[in-house]
Amino acid sequence: MLLLGVDPGSRVTGYGLVEKKQSRMTCIHAGTIAPPGNLPLYQRIHKIFESMVDLISRYQPAEMAMEDIFFAKNVKSALKIGHARGAIMVAAAQCGLEVFEYSPLEIKKAVVGYGRATKEQVRSMVQAILNMGAIPSLDASDALATAICHLNWTRFDKKS
Amino acid sequence: MLLLGVDPGSRVTGYGLVEKKQSRMTCIHAGTIAPPGNLPLYQRIHKIFESMVDLISRYQPAEMAMEDIFFAKNVKSALKIGHARGAIMVAAAQCGLEVFEYSPLEIKKAVVGYGRATKEQVRSMVQAILNMGAIPSLDASDALATAICHLNWTRFDKKS
Repeated sequence: MLLLGVDPGSRVTGYGLVEKKQSRMTCIHAGTIAPPGNLPLYQRIHKIFESMVDLISRYQPAEMAMEDIFFAKNVKSALKIGHARGAIMVAAAQCGLEVFEYSPLEIKKAVVGYGRATKEQVRSMVQAILNMGAIPSLDASDALATAICHLNWTRFDKKS
Repeated sequence: MLLLGVDPGSRVTGYGLVEKKQSRMTCIHAGTIAPPGNLPLYQRIHKIFESMVDLISRYQPAEMAMEDIFFAKNVKSALKIGHARGAIMVAAAQCGLEVFEYSPLEIKKAVVGYGRATKEQVRSMVQAILNMGAIPSLDASDALATAICHLNWTRFDKKS
């Protein structure tokens, strides 16, 4: 079972591909998508879509897990994250991937065991769980954490 | 010059195709996109994308004009509208359409001449400008108003 975890952001979107074999999880690839800030908004949003479609076509994950958002600093930042999330959802659906959403609390609990963990604590646990060295960025480690959270669901233990 | 105007909403997205020949504007087609509420969010967002791509492929407009949003009732509704706007932007860019954004104030000023006009006042003016009978919904008339606003820009007078 190969899973794509995504952490959508208004400027930077993190992603991570995690494979689960028996009970062992491995990071296959992780990184970030950050369209140039000088492009018009609709072109930046389209770049996110294109990058996600490329990624899905190349690695063929079975499903997508995404961080859900209920809060944002303000309406303006909620709109920006909403645009990115919309583009990522369209990319997943275009490629036939089912999308699962988890709250930041669920993800932190699943990975660190503590809902109010910092991003740095999440990264340390992700490194430990996936037996990795450096993780390119906190956005990528958040995306990997989302994938781990989804893979920890019991129904996957049955499938893998 | 055929133009697609769009009024993105969290549940209902209005659209309107307006043609300008010399100085006369005509409504070619107008309606709404409202994906079933029982679908998962990502599938609803994908339906908006698919409907927009269908519409653009069928009518081949030259450009897209869209209502810009700076305010929303709250963060939750901003996120929802953001998702829809993201999907519409991806559809436009996939079809090679440039996207132009106008604030509700600019649209109302361009159509009614008064920035605080009601949706009903906008509809009446849209009907008068396009010489139309009934307009299917207020979402569709807002979308037509967005198209009229864009077509009223001087550079279009030069082009058409």
